[in-house]
Amino acid sequence: MKPAVKVTITGAAGNIGYALAFRVASGDMFGPDQPVILRLLEIPQALSSLKGVGMELEDCAFPLLHDIVLTDEPSVAFAETNYAILIGAKPRGKGMERKDLITENAKIFSTQGKIINDHASRDVRVLVVGNPANTNALIASANAPDLHRKQFTAMTRLDHNRALGQLAIKTNSRVADIKQVTIWGNHSSTQFPHIDNCLVNGQPVYDLVERDWAIDEFVPRIQRRGAEVIEARGLSSAASAADAIVDHVHDWVLGTPDGDWVSMAIPSDGSYGIDKGLVYSFPVTCKNGEFEIVQGLELDELSVSRLRLSEKELLEERSIIQDLLPNA
Amino acid sequence: MKPAVKVTITGAAGNIGYALAFRVASGDMFGPDQPVILRLLEIPQALSSLKGVGMELEDCAFPLLHDIVLTDEPSVAFAETNYAILIGAKPRGKGMERKDLITENAKIFSTQGKIINDHASRDVRVLVVGNPANTNALIASANAPDLHRKQFTAMTRLDHNRALGQLAIKTNSRVADIKQVTIWGNHSSTQFPHIDNCLVNGQPVYDLVERDWAIDEFVPRIQRRGAEVIEARGLSSAASAADAIVDHVHDWVLGTPDGDWVSMAIPSDGSYGIDKGLVYSFPVTCKNGEFEIVQGLELDELSVSRLRLSEKELLEERSIIQDLLPNA
Repeated sequence: MKPAVKVTITGAAGNIGYALAFRVASGDMFGPDQPVILRLLEIPQALSSLKGVGMELEDCAFPLLHDIVLTDEPSVAFAETNYAILIGAKPRGKGMERKDLITENAKIFSTQGKIINDHASRDVRVLVVGNPANTNALIASANAPDLHRKQFTAMTRLDHNRALGQLAIKTNSRVADIKQVTIWGNHSSTQFPHIDNCLVNGQPVYDLVERDWAIDEFVPRIQRRGAEVIEARGLSSAASAADAIVDHVHDWVLGTPDGDWVSMAIPSDGSYGIDKGLVYSFPVTCKNGEFEIVQGLELDELSVSRLRLSEKELLEERSIIQDLLPNA
Repeated sequence: MKPAVKVTITGAAGNIGYALAFRVASGDMFGPDQPVILRLLEIPQALSSLKGVGMELEDCAFPLLHDIVLTDEPSVAFAETNYAILIGAKPRGKGMERKDLITENAKIFSTQGKIINDHASRDVRVLVVGNPANTNALIASANAPDLHRKQFTAMTRLDHNRALGQLAIKTNSRVADIKQVTIWGNHSSTQFPHIDNCLVNGQPVYDLVERDWAIDEFVPRIQRRGAEVIEARGLSSAASAADAIVDHVHDWVLGTPDGDWVSMAIPSDGSYGIDKGLVYSFPVTCKNGEFEIVQGLELDELSVSRLRLSEKELLEERSIIQDLLPNA
């Protein structure tokens, strides 16, 4: 049997962490022949609840789960870890300005970046889920000078999967038959869900839906989906976010299928004119554990303006936390 | 691709249902080549929350999830269904006697038994999780005269998995290396977790642990594990219960491994002297979608007395709801 991989989850007793830990332990993230060790990190106030999560994980008797570490000490959680899933973040409190939210989280993620730099395995792959995810990933990465920037990503896979789900409903097809959908930009309301290249059962999507529908209904629907779920459930997306985490890491490690791509927020290399270094969501293919931006997609004027709009937001976020970027 | 199977989950917006729906849709229950249709049933007050669950399921873009039906109408939820997972039940309210709890739930499950009888697929497999699970399964089955009693089961798999988990910790081994553990009896504090036949890495368990430990510490620990989880988490077991549901149905349909067995609460055929017809947890093997009680296990006097104790509790439960058992 393969040696176990170490997976660190922060905010592990929260709703997303709780939904995620069992999916990882069941083998959904790395496949049925890859044992895992879970390192679950929480703030001290949540340790009792985390203990309960650990007990429930024991109670599942997962054959692939070789060990569970519960801790409130980041240097323990990240020691020699292979995968760091950073979910824990400061939520927006009442009367809190967006700028305050960005600054508060920047402190958390710059610290975690340093600890990952000093303690994680040299091949660590980091996925930031806690918002503002793209900028948090940028800060963590900038504070981890001994690691490559491409080891740090942020999640737009939930938006990507939401786009697939809505297109399947609209075109009365199966999600498995929909290819080449992209989420561009920031994991925020400026994201641009883009389907100009999309194929449904091999057929161009605009044979089946109007472009006006895509721009006027589909795009805002994906951008606002999180709020819609909160309205119905009274709670924010948890199991679907956990599922997107499983998909993001699974595909990063095990590869994307031929003829399709996924969306990942990754450090820009300047592709499509996006400011180099920003953590921005692109269409990517993955192979042998590495992602690569899909090149050469044609973008019309409207699409380019949407890409720029989300880039502008990310540049603003970066300027707010400029002093926490030692290597910028 | 195989035709999709229909899976009905009652109480689907509750904590266990929420944890379960995504595991089923991901393929964990029936394997990676079996599409599913989810039929999620809730009481009218929970329909908004259920709508949110449905949205999150759409947002996962699960390739195997071919349709989702959300309803508060049992005849819609159970129509032609292949698997009925009955989680929704009336919880014990303040000042409620155990007898009241049994009677209140008996009404729910006798009604559901009738609806399953009239609307479900003739090959339906039923798993009752809502407590008192064994007696609820008995009532449902008794009210479904056109179906075979062996189509109705109740869940002791969570107890079984808890036993594996605790034995792995105690013997410092992997759960995959522990075989032949049994939960006998009622899914209640009278259950008897029994390890006299247990092998750890092929070695008799009593080479590694004392029988006194098993009886004085292990048995009460498994019996009280649910309360221990509530104490730590502040919430009852959800993800681990969902995982046990996945395991119960998975093994029932796809079979148990050679040289091992699982625990399922099933209609007694009189084996081990247990009153015929009672829904009682036995060691079972599964093959070709059928379960069979493991015969010929030697039970010492103490074990027999524990089996009788749990049987006595189930006989008492049955006497409380005798008038809802038309075929008894």
